[in-house]
Amino acid sequence: MREFDKTVVSCAVTGAIHTPTMSPHLPITAEEIAAEAVAAAEAGASIVHVHVRDEATGEPVTDLDLFREVAETVAEGCDAIVQPTTGGAPTMPPEERIQVVPELEPEMASCNMGSINFGLYQLVEKYDEFEYDWEPEYLDGTRDLIFQNTFADLETILPIFDEHDTKPELEVYDVGHLYNAKHLVDRGLVQTPIHIQFVLGIHGGIGASAKNLNHLVDVAEDLFGDDFTFSVIGAGRHEFPLGTQAVSMGGHARVGLEDNLYLERGRLAESNAELVEKMVRLTREVAGREVATPVETRELLGLKGKSSTAF
Amino acid sequence: MREFDKTVVSCAVTGAIHTPTMSPHLPITAEEIAAEAVAAAEAGASIVHVHVRDEATGEPVTDLDLFREVAETVAEGCDAIVQPTTGGAPTMPPEERIQVVPELEPEMASCNMGSINFGLYQLVEKYDEFEYDWEPEYLDGTRDLIFQNTFADLETILPIFDEHDTKPELEVYDVGHLYNAKHLVDRGLVQTPIHIQFVLGIHGGIGASAKNLNHLVDVAEDLFGDDFTFSVIGAGRHEFPLGTQAVSMGGHARVGLEDNLYLERGRLAESNAELVEKMVRLTREVAGREVATPVETRELLGLKGKSSTAF
Amino acid sequence: MREFDKTVVSCAVTGAIHTPTMSPHLPITAEEIAAEAVAAAEAGASIVHVHVRDEATGEPVTDLDLFREVAETVAEGCDAIVQPTTGGAPTMPPEERIQVVPELEPEMASCNMGSINFGLYQLVEKYDEFEYDWEPEYLDGTRDLIFQNTFADLETILPIFDEHDTKPELEVYDVGHLYNAKHLVDRGLVQTPIHIQFVLGIHGGIGASAKNLNHLVDVAEDLFGDDFTFSVIGAGRHEFPLGTQAVSMGGHARVGLEDNLYLERGRLAESNAELVEKMVRLTREVAGREVATPVETRELLGLKGKSSTAF
Amino acid sequence: MREFDKTVVSCAVTGAIHTPTMSPHLPITAEEIAAEAVAAAEAGASIVHVHVRDEATGEPVTDLDLFREVAETVAEGCDAIVQPTTGGAPTMPPEERIQVVPELEPEMASCNMGSINFGLYQLVEKYDEFEYDWEPEYLDGTRDLIFQNTFADLETILPIFDEHDTKPELEVYDVGHLYNAKHLVDRGLVQTPIHIQFVLGIHGGIGASAKNLNHLVDVAEDLFGDDFTFSVIGAGRHEFPLGTQAVSMGGHARVGLEDNLYLERGRLAESNAELVEKMVRLTREVAGREVATPVETRELLGLKGKSSTAF
Repeated sequence: MREFDKTVVSCAVTGAIHTPTMSPHLPITAEEIAAEAVAAAEAGASIVHVHVRDEATGEPVTDLDLFREVAETVAEGCDAIVQPTTGGAPTMPPEERIQVVPELEPEMASCNMGSINFGLYQLVEKYDEFEYDWEPEYLDGTRDLIFQNTFADLETILPIFDEHDTKPELEVYDVGHLYNAKHLVDRGLVQTPIHIQFVLGIHGGIGASAKNLNHLVDVAEDLFGDDFTFSVIGAGRHEFPLGTQAVSMGGHARVGLEDNLYLERGRLAESNAELVEKMVRLTREVAGREVATPVETRELLGLKGKSSTAF
Repeated sequence: MREFDKTVVSCAVTGAIHTPTMSPHLPITAEEIAAEAVAAAEAGASIVHVHVRDEATGEPVTDLDLFREVAETVAEGCDAIVQPTTGGAPTMPPEERIQVVPELEPEMASCNMGSINFGLYQLVEKYDEFEYDWEPEYLDGTRDLIFQNTFADLETILPIFDEHDTKPELEVYDVGHLYNAKHLVDRGLVQTPIHIQFVLGIHGGIGASAKNLNHLVDVAEDLFGDDFTFSVIGAGRHEFPLGTQAVSMGGHARVGLEDNLYLERGRLAESNAELVEKMVRLTREVAGREVATPVETRELLGLKGKSSTAF
Repeated sequence: MREFDKTVVSCAVTGAIHTPTMSPHLPITAEEIAAEAVAAAEAGASIVHVHVRDEATGEPVTDLDLFREVAETVAEGCDAIVQPTTGGAPTMPPEERIQVVPELEPEMASCNMGSINFGLYQLVEKYDEFEYDWEPEYLDGTRDLIFQNTFADLETILPIFDEHDTKPELEVYDVGHLYNAKHLVDRGLVQTPIHIQFVLGIHGGIGASAKNLNHLVDVAEDLFGDDFTFSVIGAGRHEFPLGTQAVSMGGHARVGLEDNLYLERGRLAESNAELVEKMVRLTREVAGREVATPVETRELLGLKGKSSTAF
Repeated sequence: MREFDKTVVSCAVTGAIHTPTMSPHLPITAEEIAAEAVAAAEAGASIVHVHVRDEATGEPVTDLDLFREVAETVAEGCDAIVQPTTGGAPTMPPEERIQVVPELEPEMASCNMGSINFGLYQLVEKYDEFEYDWEPEYLDGTRDLIFQNTFADLETILPIFDEHDTKPELEVYDVGHLYNAKHLVDRGLVQTPIHIQFVLGIHGGIGASAKNLNHLVDVAEDLFGDDFTFSVIGAGRHEFPLGTQAVSMGGHARVGLEDNLYLERGRLAESNAELVEKMVRLTREVAGREVATPVETRELLGLKGKSSTAF
């Protein structure tokens, strides 16, 4: 693993997992998403990971105009790296999800390393009623859903990253995805050093535990030696335990309302910035590390720079 | 983990991964499959795991008549537990793959614990030419394939196992599949004690290594305590390293031409029985354990018995 | 592992590792040690682990009068469990170190699970000069030192714990010490459920890392099933990373000036209470767990109670 | 870890753990020890690890004349690397145990990486009576024994290895010993690449399990990257399970009557050569690897060559 003194804190501001009923603080419109991203950057996030939602209903969409609006507004408001998803919602096909890359030519975008069941249906029973009809339908629909990222999909998508000099952040939901990444590196479809985002705690992927995080890092070290950096997402209440472990191990951490709605047990986060502030503070207090600025993060990850994007 | 003094050796006689070109010893017809299964049982396998193939071309199929013919012939020839696949080929839909359970009401059948990319396409380049046209097409087609086993599929399939008192062998291709199994146990869809088959080395699933095997067993212990038994498949050349590690750890092992075509480096196994004989010998020599008879295996795994099947 | 909702935070107020030159905040006299212990208890520590020092020079000693003075003063000032060391300084023989148990009949005392090199000599070069001559001599002397706890020593010491109904806290400095503990449990010399203190980062013992902590807990689970609880000490700057990991894994944590002199990078802790406060806060913020009171800790660990001690 | 295609099989022909009563096949005299070593080399061992014993009673000794006689006889009889112990018996002081290095100037000698309890007393009760009085005394005496290898001892001993260009094989009995080795490497007292012998299953050291072996290798990779090779000893019945796992992981294996008296469950090995033959066969059959010749082993480990020794 490449070790850096500074820690990259990313913030995933809205995602496609949580729905409006679950938190009144989830940003919905492009304006809200951009404002949350800028505030997160001010709180210490050097990367902001963005999805977009239908402005009327909050449903996850892949509307390129919305992506552009978010990207442009964030770029005006701060220096953070704008990292759009190519995961979209697990319900969307890969060819649709990738379009944001040629459109925005971002410095980075997420890229999912394999297919898994992606169950959100178990969340339905936690809420008595939903604000929008699409919410329980969307969540319950994941019962029969596979989050599709076949080898053929990856063969199609990765050259598009390359063409636009967009660094893929490799989203790894289970141990096998690391072997997929190795296969893609060996075939020249992904350039090293790679940047991995470990996602623990998705229903269908690897569970969220200290043991699993260690194992993922161990296997990555076996496969990639010094040719990788990593960040960690612990879903829900695992955000801070796994985030602090990650930064203590020399890695990086992602927080945000996409991954976790709660600032602490029983208390909803009122903004993404609150989650970022907490992670920044824990990074210092637990691991004794400072947080990287966007400039430092660009250097650490070898990004092309903000001026080379199409927004 | 439940520990037993005796080791269960299973044999997977033909599967849906290898194709006729890869080995002349791969059994194709129901007669050949049954004969290989009986010989494997005589060599010490107490469970024979069976798939069926088109008798003319060797292509994997789910023909129930062929399954019945295999099951009946094996049952006549030996006392081993006949365990049909419900995985079929990764290219077949779950509702087709399950039909063998109500048809044969077997003591056990395999049941896959999640969805993954399942890549066989990388095998195409290892062969200059193929005997049948379907072979390279089938293999290369997996480039865009997901081996589908959604939560909804499992909700449909598992009650069929229960209805016929068929014990599911839970096929686990990655760490997340253990969490899926836990979810299904918690919902009452799978009865404990469970029997897990860890599959390591499939392109798309967890890699084949001593470290990964240990981790899978560790996580299973955390999730299921003493309420599970496990067996291990190491794909290809990992069959014997991981099989011997498994039996040394108190687990069980599966071998056979479905998983591995080679008796040793550079030497094709001439029969399934050869692979079984080797595993039985290694079990004694390395782990100091004896192999369980079919009667002992039925008792260990709590199976309903041969006379309660529909063949 | 036995899981509890509440977390036990212990505080080791002075120890025998650090010397007066290293921090002006290290308590030396019985009065200072007791005052620090009481303040630590007020900050949330339910167990205070105590050593004593020569009141003139600060050198570690096993003077029973000093132990008594500390114990009595702490008992007057708060309800925390007073846990004297039987490790003393690594330079002292076991028969001397155990005397505090029959003298005070405490609810708990530490008990070391094996022999290791215990090197403090590498600390000498970090300081330009020392306040007392004994300091560099003592530290450098550990170059040739073994912290002695032979099986015969343990056979002698453990019945003394039993006789006074003092629960041993099993100090585990490496993986082998867990096997030693298992051996002692199997021989009836230690009663279950056991309480383990994992000590990571001593020069001579297991290193301080997330991976090592996970492994220790895994092995303990294999050996003791549900019959143990554990707490963690990460030496020096590993105090908070490993402490937070421990409480996130369902364990407990020890902090204090014995183990770590710094509140954060480059900033000496001004009191034990400061370290306890930080750990209590992190326990809530990272793991979402509350801290156990002394009453709750007594119940969790099955202690005889304060009124049954000889002080 | 440095990976090699070939496997180094070492044979430890007599050691200081087992006593004459335990097996009539344990070699005692210099002549017997040398003959066993030569036969082991012929069976495929490229390194023979030797201790010496009192010729009348079989008690472990450090008599340099006996070491010389063994070394010279082995050197005449075969090309294997003669590796004397500097561990002697755990009851002997380090300054006595090291003398064999300046005396023989061997290509390699063992060097123990720390101090541990080393209990053999539990073996006493397995035998109704002993042939020699020293046997139960010696074994039971380990109850109060520490196998002493302090940092000061290592500071004294390691330069003697260097002076005679004798490569130390670093004997690691627990995880902490790897950190000790790292400390010695960092101080320039041990040259890289290092060769580690992991010893699992000594009563007082790390237990013998697949999990522990994996962990040791993992930690070694973290500490030494590609700058190490490793071999494994599994004490007693763990010799073959851990030996096969080691060679499957890319490491090397040691067998021999020092470590294990049984060829299989309930059957004493009649010679060291039998154990070597079995390990050589398992190396091929399980891991598909061939065994290194002495010439290849010298090249792999960077040894000075047989002609540069003083025998």
